[in-house]
Amino acid sequence: MVLSSIFLFNGLSESRLKIITDTVKETRIKKGHWLFHEGDGADRFYALKNGAVELFTRVDNDLELPVTIIRKVGGCFGISALVPPYQYSLSSRCAEDADLLEFRREDIEKLSAEDQALGCTIMTNLAQYLLERLKETRQDLKNHFKALFQSTQT
Amino acid sequence: MVLSSIFLFNGLSESRLKIITDTVKETRIKKGHWLFHEGDGADRFYALKNGAVELFTRVDNDLELPVTIIRKVGGCFGISALVPPYQYSLSSRCAEDADLLEFRREDIEKLSAEDQALGCTIMTNLAQYLLERLKETRQDLKNHFKALFQSTQT
Repeated sequence: MVLSSIFLFNGLSESRLKIITDTVKETRIKKGHWLFHEGDGADRFYALKNGAVELFTRVDNDLELPVTIIRKVGGCFGISALVPPYQYSLSSRCAEDADLLEFRREDIEKLSAEDQALGCTIMTNLAQYLLERLKETRQDLKNHFKALFQSTQT
Repeated sequence: MVLSSIFLFNGLSESRLKIITDTVKETRIKKGHWLFHEGDGADRFYALKNGAVELFTRVDNDLELPVTIIRKVGGCFGISALVPPYQYSLSSRCAEDADLLEFRREDIEKLSAEDQALGCTIMTNLAQYLLERLKETRQDLKNHFKALFQSTQT
């Protein structure tokens, strides 16, 4: 079951995973297909079943900066759909033909309202995930500073 | 009341804020005092009442990289205490004599277990905060790439 491999759902019981499964839509996309663009309103997020999806950002509209490629089963993206102001913070394009699970915010919010423990678990997992990404991004920034610092010392 | 100006508690009722207030410890610290170091186990977070606290990271132990200075009443730091693996991701030093509110993870976890709506609200606010920090840090990284890109074009 793909859902149990999705970090957002870590710690949820089988019965809760089943309830979420009932809301999921499966989608097949072709290489080169755009799922969303940075800045778009975000009403759904995705998890990978197979294939590959690339996430990137644009620097001044003239330079594409890759952020990551998702290849792992259960790899999740578009999670800005769960956090105000509900706006995608990256762009997403299919890198290899892929099967996806599509989750709508509306459904997750409804389930969370009905079952607060479920909502709480998802939000705790999301906070953990975002903190990890923040640390990674800070590390990238540090590496840049380090390179810059070293170049001024030689 | 300082608690209502803390982003983590946005949306909580007065009665819930009162319950949290009862767990808080007030602390006065002097300029130059260290609150915690990057990598330390994180069991408490802080909110500023007055004064200033600096957050920074170290690059290879030989270069101190400032991340931010907190001066705003209710400004919060050390929130890695709420997210596994409960390890501070930055260091914190008092920049100007300060009065702080100190929140222990243990207390917040206890209150969240007793009142899941409270826990859910805190975690949702935390996820929103972390996503904002992630976007800012990505923007810093983009600015570096942009500068680097431009320097190779001239």
